[in-house]
Formats: sequence, structure tokens, C-alpha cells
Amino acid sequence: MEAVKASLSSQPFSSTLNVDVEGGLDISSGRKKVIWPRKSLSKVASARLQSSTVWSSKELAKFSLPAVTGGRQGSSVGMHIRANAAQIMDDVAAPPREEMTIVDVDLGDRSYPIYIGKGLLNQPELLQNHVHGKKVLIVTNSTIAPLYLDRVIASLKDGGNKVEVESVILPDGEQYKSMEVLMKVYDKAIETRMDRRCTFIALGGGVIGDMCGYAAASYLRGVNFIQIPTTLMAQVDSSVGGKTGVNHPLGKNMIGAFYQPQCVLVDTETLNTLPDRELASGVAEVIKYGLIRDADFFEWQEENMEKILARDTSTLVYAVKRSCENKAAVVAADEREAGLRATLNLGHTFGHAIETGTGYGNWLHGEAVGAGTIMAADMSLRLGWIDKDLFNRILSITMRAKLPIEPPSSMDVQLFKSIMAVDKKVADGLLRLILLKGPLGNCVFTADYDVKALEDTLRHFCKS
Amino acid sequence: MEAVKASLSSQPFSSTLNVDVEGGLDISSGRKKVIWPRKSLSKVASARLQSSTVWSSKELAKFSLPAVTGGRQGSSVGMHIRANAAQIMDDVAAPPREEMTIVDVDLGDRSYPIYIGKGLLNQPELLQNHVHGKKVLIVTNSTIAPLYLDRVIASLKDGGNKVEVESVILPDGEQYKSMEVLMKVYDKAIETRMDRRCTFIALGGGVIGDMCGYAAASYLRGVNFIQIPTTLMAQVDSSVGGKTGVNHPLGKNMIGAFYQPQCVLVDTETLNTLPDRELASGVAEVIKYGLIRDADFFEWQEENMEKILARDTSTLVYAVKRSCENKAAVVAADEREAGLRATLNLGHTFGHAIETGTGYGNWLHGEAVGAGTIMAADMSLRLGWIDKDLFNRILSITMRAKLPIEPPSSMDVQLFKSIMAVDKKVADGLLRLILLKGPLGNCVFTADYDVKALEDTLRHFCKS
Repeated sequence: MEAVKASLSSQPFSSTLNVDVEGGLDISSGRKKVIWPRKSLSKVASARLQSSTVWSSKELAKFSLPAVTGGRQGSSVGMHIRANAAQIMDDVAAPPREEMTIVDVDLGDRSYPIYIGKGLLNQPELLQNHVHGKKVLIVTNSTIAPLYLDRVIASLKDGGNKVEVESVILPDGEQYKSMEVLMKVYDKAIETRMDRRCTFIALGGGVIGDMCGYAAASYLRGVNFIQIPTTLMAQVDSSVGGKTGVNHPLGKNMIGAFYQPQCVLVDTETLNTLPDRELASGVAEVIKYGLIRDADFFEWQEENMEKILARDTSTLVYAVKRSCENKAAVVAADEREAGLRATLNLGHTFGHAIETGTGYGNWLHGEAVGAGTIMAADMSLRLGWIDKDLFNRILSITMRAKLPIEPPSSMDVQLFKSIMAVDKKVADGLLRLILLKGPLGNCVFTADYDVKALEDTLRHFCKS
Repeated sequence: MEAVKASLSSQPFSSTLNVDVEGGLDISSGRKKVIWPRKSLSKVASARLQSSTVWSSKELAKFSLPAVTGGRQGSSVGMHIRANAAQIMDDVAAPPREEMTIVDVDLGDRSYPIYIGKGLLNQPELLQNHVHGKKVLIVTNSTIAPLYLDRVIASLKDGGNKVEVESVILPDGEQYKSMEVLMKVYDKAIETRMDRRCTFIALGGGVIGDMCGYAAASYLRGVNFIQIPTTLMAQVDSSVGGKTGVNHPLGKNMIGAFYQPQCVLVDTETLNTLPDRELASGVAEVIKYGLIRDADFFEWQEENMEKILARDTSTLVYAVKRSCENKAAVVAADEREAGLRATLNLGHTFGHAIETGTGYGNWLHGEAVGAGTIMAADMSLRLGWIDKDLFNRILSITMRAKLPIEPPSSMDVQLFKSIMAVDKKVADGLLRLILLKGPLGNCVFTADYDVKALEDTLRHFCKS
């Protein structure tokens, strides 16, 4: 552990970048621009989605806006903007110091808010409002602990708040997303006598979120749980929607649960310490939302990809916000993946095969998804479901994001097939895939395709 | 394995007894007698409970009664008797060969029926109606597999039903209710390519039910699941209500999920192969229902304990049915154990300490619960919450059931305390206990007791 710690602290990441969050493009006019929803979203889903842009809770407390308490006021029909920047700015003399966006995930009694903004880890009320009981277990990893653990503990105890905080630090990497490592979380929870009213906090990327979430789902048959995602991948995708779990040596995420957090707290400042490769990995999921359901967002990415990679703050915040809105809408419409939710796995069936086939942790998840998305697009093109122009746009944006556009040479056709055969989306022996079909922003989830196209795609991308 | 089979088949249980089920005492008049609910059951709970006594599904098919499909027609206010023996007997020339009782567990979209009757494993439609998809994984143990596995497989495939059936046979005993053994279920599921539409079937006692249920809850984030309990303990308690999980070396059932089955199939014939010690273990939970909420049932047990132990069929069937009705009512009122459901754990906090302290598998669960119930009764007596007469009745019926009335000599006060400190019912540092209070059939779930009484009870039952 010490060795890991030492090598990480010597990595060349700047921690001095100043974050300059203006709340993103959608509120630049001072009025909420409805960027919402595209064809593939059902009316129910769009009706259930609530989105609001509000100031920090400290600021909001002055105006007694109901939105600040976390957005469980229930849904109403149509796009419901519960507060917008313009309304509030009319009332205050000067703009407040910090801004926060809330995206609500509407799941009935399992609904929760996603708080997005700069410096949210320094707003103790946010965390404290969602902690129940007197005990907290923070699950984090050896990379993130030295960067943010103390800050989260300070936030939890701020103002003399009486809460007992314990933490467990896991090794960093997808290869540690195993039942064996998960047992360390249970061990720590039992040793420190975490009880049914305790709260688990996931502080880290997708691996930590999935493992901590699954530990929370299964410890004492379920305890409270908060997500603090610190990677772009986790902020735009894995921390939202309640999928939790660990890998099995034979397949990714084979053991897990649907288990929703109390809230998701996205402090965009944490992206400042993220390695470039991890940032690009997250971008793979951002691209995905554009492809499956949000053509405008894809076009925005085509204009702004270099600003994302350069970590322009307002660009990043907007990418996170719009990604979370897309994810929240899909999850609200289909929490347990009866159908629609599966579309969020564009490129993932090929990608999971790459991750499993090359050994967990060698390729980052988003890297595998990047190459997997190209494979899915290639297959869609072979089926005649998309045109060559769209394929080329996908290829181009993936390359600009510095993501791989093909699987590693170690993957052969047989390896792909054997791993894909145990994919979670196999039903009654048929492999269902998410494929693009029609103009940009449209996809299908289907087992009704010519298997020759799949064969051809695999053969095209593999040497043997 | 063969040795077990031989010894079991030579046991003096008649398998030629005709089941003479009139649905138990409550329908002996040919009209449903509402035996329901006692003080501790909320009005909501009683309104949600549905119970019906109907003939076998083969017979019912002739009359197109909706009840036969499994009772998910939703709840209505008040006691809803959806079919009763008298109604059907009016329509048929002669009574059908076999009778089946259905107890519905009413949990909204997670509702399911408990089928109770003799020879139900020989009624293939019951199982086939609740299997979804084309693949089934039966999880059983080395004791039960030689006795019933072939029969269940035959039932699943009866009539040329196209379903692929796999099985995994675990070692028998509480000491194998571990994450390590659970991994064998995941391994088998992945190797045999069980997909999201598959069904897991738990064939065995409480350990198998808990492990298979938890595997079903977590494999691919949740697949269908059927309980076929083969011990009295599982039939009257553990198979009903959706508690699943495995033990941690430091505490019982520390890792698990609330996960409801598609149905529970209780074939009372399977009790014919149950060892006497296992039968007595199950009786501990039957006694519990009487003590916590059903004084009439307790009094019936006082009259019938020897007939239960002698395996008188109709007596056993009634004990199972009324136990399931009690459990279903409590679970319907409080699925996730916010409060009321905890009362089902009378004697279990002491009992779990005994099981953990002596090493899983040395004492049967019901044996530990038996001694634990005496300890809880002793503490209730010390608090002045019950009178000496009630305590003596509890002591007497426990002795008649051939259950232990004190913990093993290896348990000392400190060991009890250290294990009870990590009990799931600890909240914010306080140990909540289920204690008897008032006349027979009443209990409380509370942390508001004089700890001296707990100390005195522990010291009374332990040498050091």
C-alpha cells in the first residue's frame, strides 16, 4: 500500500488549477434553456424528469426555495423547472460565490438528487443532510484517499456535527473489483460496528462506486449510501442510476444489485486531479449519450471536444450536467433495465469482452467502450442501419477524444464470442445488442439482426 | 451420500398416510373462519392479507378460478376469501384427490403465493407456471439432492416442457452458509450460461433458501427465484418473506438482501424424511408465532405438541399454514423490517449469539432460538413484563418440543455481549431486543429496558 501511495504522489498532476465554474452553457443567458428530450425518450420519461439550476444551498436558504432540500417533491407533467438562475438573480444584489445544479433522478420513493458544482465538498450541509444515523463508513481507494478523504471527513464533522467516521481504503483499479476485495469492506463495517442506520459513502471512481454501492446494498440487507464520484466516468455515468456490483473472473459486473443512493455529490474540482487517460475514458460515455438519444449534445461535443480535454471548467460542467440529465431520464423510465435502459450500454458488450479478455484493469472501462462503440457502429453500418457519414463522424470524435478505435491485438474472434455468450444481455440464448439505427441520436436494443454482420465485424477487427 | 439415503429411508415415517387436510381448524365448518389478526397487527396489515384455501391447480383449472394463477390480482380492503372449499365442493361430484392451501404474501408488485399441501412436487403445473425463461438452476444440498432432485427435475420437464435444468449441490449445514460456498453458485450459473430470464430454485432447508435467494438477488443484479423448502424450519419461516443472505465469520446473516421469490412450494411430504432434531428445530419458530402475536395458536400447540412431533400429517399441515399466515401478515405490514417485522426475531438475538459463539452448524438454528426464547422470556420476567405463569408455560412447551432451554456451557457473558454488540438490530449504539410484555401473544421491540435485567439474564444462564 505504501508503495502504491508513493508512486501515485509522484505523478505529474497539477493540483493548483483554478476551477472556474459558470454553470455551463444552458444558463448562460440567465434563463433555463430546455435542452430536452429526443425521440427515443418516452413521454412518461420526459414527464418524470425534473431538472433545475439553483444556487448553493447556503444562498438558497435565504429564499426558502423548496428545491434546495433535494428535490423529492414529486413529479408533475411536462418539463418542470423549479428554480432558475434568472429568478434568483432578480432577488439578490450580487451573484453568489458558487453555483450548483441539481438533476433529480425520479424513482418514486427511491428518488434522489445529483448535486453538480464546483467546491461542493466544501459545503458541509449537502453531505450532512443526507447522512442518517451516527456512523459513516467512507469507502475509497489508495489514489483518492490522500487527495480528498480528509476534506470529506472535515465536511461530515463540520460545525461540531456528532458523527463517527470510519474509512476503508481499497487498492485502485478494475482488477480489484472482486468479491475478495469487497469482503474487506464488510470486515471493516463489522469491526467498526456499523449498524442499520449507518451511511456508506463511496469516494472515488466507478470501481469504488460500484463496490461501495453493492456493499451498502448487501450489508445488513441494505444501509444508506452516498456517491461522491471523483472521475469523469463516475460523474457522467456510473454513479447515477443505482447499478452496483463486482466482477466475476468470467464476466464483468456479474454479481450485483440495483440499489439507489441517497444523493450523488459531484464536485467538479475533483476532475483537476484526474489523469488524462482517465478523463478520456469518461468522455467515451459522454459521446454515448449523444449517439443513443441526444443529437444536439453530440453536435455540441463535435464543437467542444478539445475544450473538454483541456478541462475548460464550464465546458466540463455542462458535459457532466447534460450527461446526468440523459442518464436520469433513461433510468427513471426503466430502472431495472427491462429494455430502454439497456441502450446506455452502446458499445459495452464489445467493451466488456475486451476488459474481460485482456484482464481487468489493463484497459480502462471507457477505453474499452470507445473501441466497442466503433465496433457497434461498424456492425450497424454493415447492416445498412446507419450511413457512412455518421460512421465517420463517430470515428472522428472518438479519435479526437484520444480513445482507441479498435480492440487490442490479443483479442481474437473466438475470445470475443466466448465472453459475449455470457453477457448479461443474453436472453434465452440470444445475444441482444445496442446498435445504431437511423439518423444521429437513434439506436435499437435487439437480438433481431443478421448474425453475419456480427461475424464480419468481429473478423474485421480481429487478426484471427 | 448413499448412507444418508439409506438411513433416511429406513426411518419410521409413513409415506402412505393420506393427507386429510380440511384447511385446518379455520375452515372445518366449510366456511372460512377468520382466525386473524391479533393486537400487534396493524389495520393496514390485516387489510392487505389475503388467504384462500383451494383445491389443486389441476382441479381448479376446470373452474377457471383466478386464484390458481398465483394470486397477484391485487389487494382489496378487508379479508378477501377468493375461493373456499365449500364453494368448489358445491360444483363437483366427488372431492378431488388432493387438496392445497394457498397463503398469499401481499407485497404489491412483489406479491407471491405460498402453496401448501401433500404431494405438490408431483403437480408440475405449479412449478412450471412460475418458471420464466428457458433455463433453471436448482440449488440444493448433498442431503436433499438424492431424495428430491430428480422429482423436481421431472416436474419441470413434465409434459415435454422445454426447459434446460442445471443443478448445483452444496455441502449441508449452517457452517457452509458462507460467501466462499456462495461463489460456487455463481460459478455454476456463469458456466451454464444462466441468463437474466432464468429461474433459480432453492430446494432444501433454510441455509439453501437463504443462499439461493441471495444468489438470485445478486446474479446479474437479480433473476427469478422459487423456494421449495424441505425442512419444517424453512416451511414455517425462512422461505417466506424474502430475507436472504450468508453469514460472516463475525456475525450471522450480515451480508444479504431482501428479495422475494416468485412462489413458495411447500410439499409436506418432504417432512417425512426430516430427522427428529431438524423437526424440533422448526417447532421453535412455530412456538414463536404463538408467543409474539397468536395466543390461540399457542394454546393449540399446547394441545397438539406431541402430535406435531409424531408427524401427524394434518397437524403438521395446520402448523405450517397458520405459521405462514402469521409470517405473511407481518411481512406484508413491514417488508424491510422498519419495526414490526423485527418481532419475528423473538429469541434470535440470544440465539444468533449462540450460533456464532459455538461455531455455525454445531447448534441448529431452531435449537439456538429455543434457548434464546427462554432467555428472552427470563429477561421479560425480570423486567416484570410477563408473569411467572406465562414463563412456565413457555418453559414447558419448549421442553416438550425437545428443544434446549439454556445456552451451551461454552457461552460466557462476555462472549454473548461481544457478539450481540454487532447484531443487526443495534441502532445508534443501542441493542434493541424483542421481549414479551403483557398477556400471552404480546411482545415489544425496544431498546428501552433496564440493562440490569439483561446483565442478570446473561449471568443467570452463563457460568462466567
